Amino acid sequence: MFKFRTKVYYEDTDSGGVVYYANYLKFIERARTNLIQELGFSLKSLSEKYDCHFVVKNIHCSYIQSAKLEDELSIQTKFIDIKKASFELEQNIYKDDKVIFKSKVLMVIINSTGKPIKIPDSLSSVINV
Amino acid sequence: MFKFRTKVYYEDTDSGGVVYYANYLKFIERARTNLIQELGFSLKSLSEKYDCHFVVKNIHCSYIQSAKLEDELSIQTKFIDIKKASFELEQNIYKDDKVIFKSKVLMVIINSTGKPIKIPDSLSSVINV
Amino acid sequence: MFKFRTKVYYEDTDSGGVVYYANYLKFIERARTNLIQELGFSLKSLSEKYDCHFVVKNIHCSYIQSAKLEDELSIQTKFIDIKKASFELEQNIYKDDKVIFKSKVLMVIINSTGKPIKIPDSLSSVINV
Amino acid sequence: MFKFRTKVYYEDTDSGGVVYYANYLKFIERARTNLIQELGFSLKSLSEKYDCHFVVKNIHCSYIQSAKLEDELSIQTKFIDIKKASFELEQNIYKDDKVIFKSKVLMVIINSTGKPIKIPDSLSSVINV
Repeated sequence: MFKFRTKVYYEDTDSGGVVYYANYLKFIERARTNLIQELGFSLKSLSEKYDCHFVVKNIHCSYIQSAKLEDELSIQTKFIDIKKASFELEQNIYKDDKVIFKSKVLMVIINSTGKPIKIPDSLSSVINV
Repeated sequence: MFKFRTKVYYEDTDSGGVVYYANYLKFIERARTNLIQELGFSLKSLSEKYDCHFVVKNIHCSYIQSAKLEDELSIQTKFIDIKKASFELEQNIYKDDKVIFKSKVLMVIINSTGKPIKIPDSLSSVINV
Repeated sequence: MFKFRTKVYYEDTDSGGVVYYANYLKFIERARTNLIQELGFSLKSLSEKYDCHFVVKNIHCSYIQSAKLEDELSIQTKFIDIKKASFELEQNIYKDDKVIFKSKVLMVIINSTGKPIKIPDSLSSVINV
Repeated sequence: MFKFRTKVYYEDTDSGGVVYYANYLKFIERARTNLIQELGFSLKSLSEKYDCHFVVKNIHCSYIQSAKLEDELSIQTKFIDIKKASFELEQNIYKDDKVIFKSKVLMVIINSTGKPIKIPDSLSSVINV
């Protein structure tokens, strides 16, 4: 389980007074980038060294409760499946220890021509499902 | 079937050279707002007259092909289910008549206290499933 | 004078109930892209044919009145100066014929290595200051 | 001088490979929110207790060098002027100790009807120009 914290700013909210629904996808992407860095890589190094890029193939989101301006959110990410050229994540967002957003994200690994490629061994070896 | 067209600008893209994955949710939200207006309502009138607000409860998205800067996209929206206080939409995005993004969106109707309410009759009467 | 219309969606607003201040810069960038297309070019063709890219060097913005959800805005753009490798625009936003936002934008033309380059003749010849 | 750090994510970049020009305004707004919190307030408490809201009236920005994916940025904010119902900030962004973006921001304090109001004493008393 990887935990990442982020704060809600004006840019994230809409005139409904809550976080705009698409922006939760920004929050969980920030968490994924930090997870990659926590594992000892960077998006840049994976791109330059392995021509390895991550794309979201499918996402399923459930909106449970809204977040508001200045809320402190915790995004909790875990690997739930890993295949040769893809992996699946569960990424849930918590506010004061209460889950407010749940998602499952299927990521595919591609090269710069858009073709699926095998996850680099050095990366897959540090992923625990 | 309701069709809405939108163009891809720099703001929509990311350094991967394609539209950032969360921004497709902006595109389909624009289509929903225009659909409401096409049906003879506005978000403002529904809020002021009926204290009626739409929130996304669940969304499932499939990313099939990427969109790029200056692409012209067509968002095609149809109602696939309607209940007392909710409805479900299919919202697919096309580029040159090829589907590049598919989604199913469950919307709930709430009042300003966040409680689910019945869809106003004048609105439900013009929705065809 | 080039006129471009855009509508305010939820994505553009914030919890203050009005358009988030940074998003006016998105609106005027959309107008610039459409202006380039109106002049017979595209960002893609300028990039591929001339290795010509536009970057904002300076911008001065005045916020006069706020825009709200579902507002229809008109962005009016005119060239106020053109030099060898740069040009200056005035880009004002109107709501119901009343100006709500004013800006002056200095754009520089660069190649893909980031070096300022001469504006392509075919482009500068159709720009009227 | 108030320092605030933020990281560049995919959401901040565009297909030019760098941070989209409007997003620097998000970064400096995050810094302003954190500055208010550092001074012992919150946007929420200022709104609820004093009906006090901040709006940007004018902004002047200079783009000096571009930021890229995964860059760590430092936003440095200082008050340069304070009046009865407004204050001016200088907000510069640094990457590796090199300034890449400079701005001057005139903020006005208004109440919820949009009328300029006096800065609350408890806030102005902790502002050093």
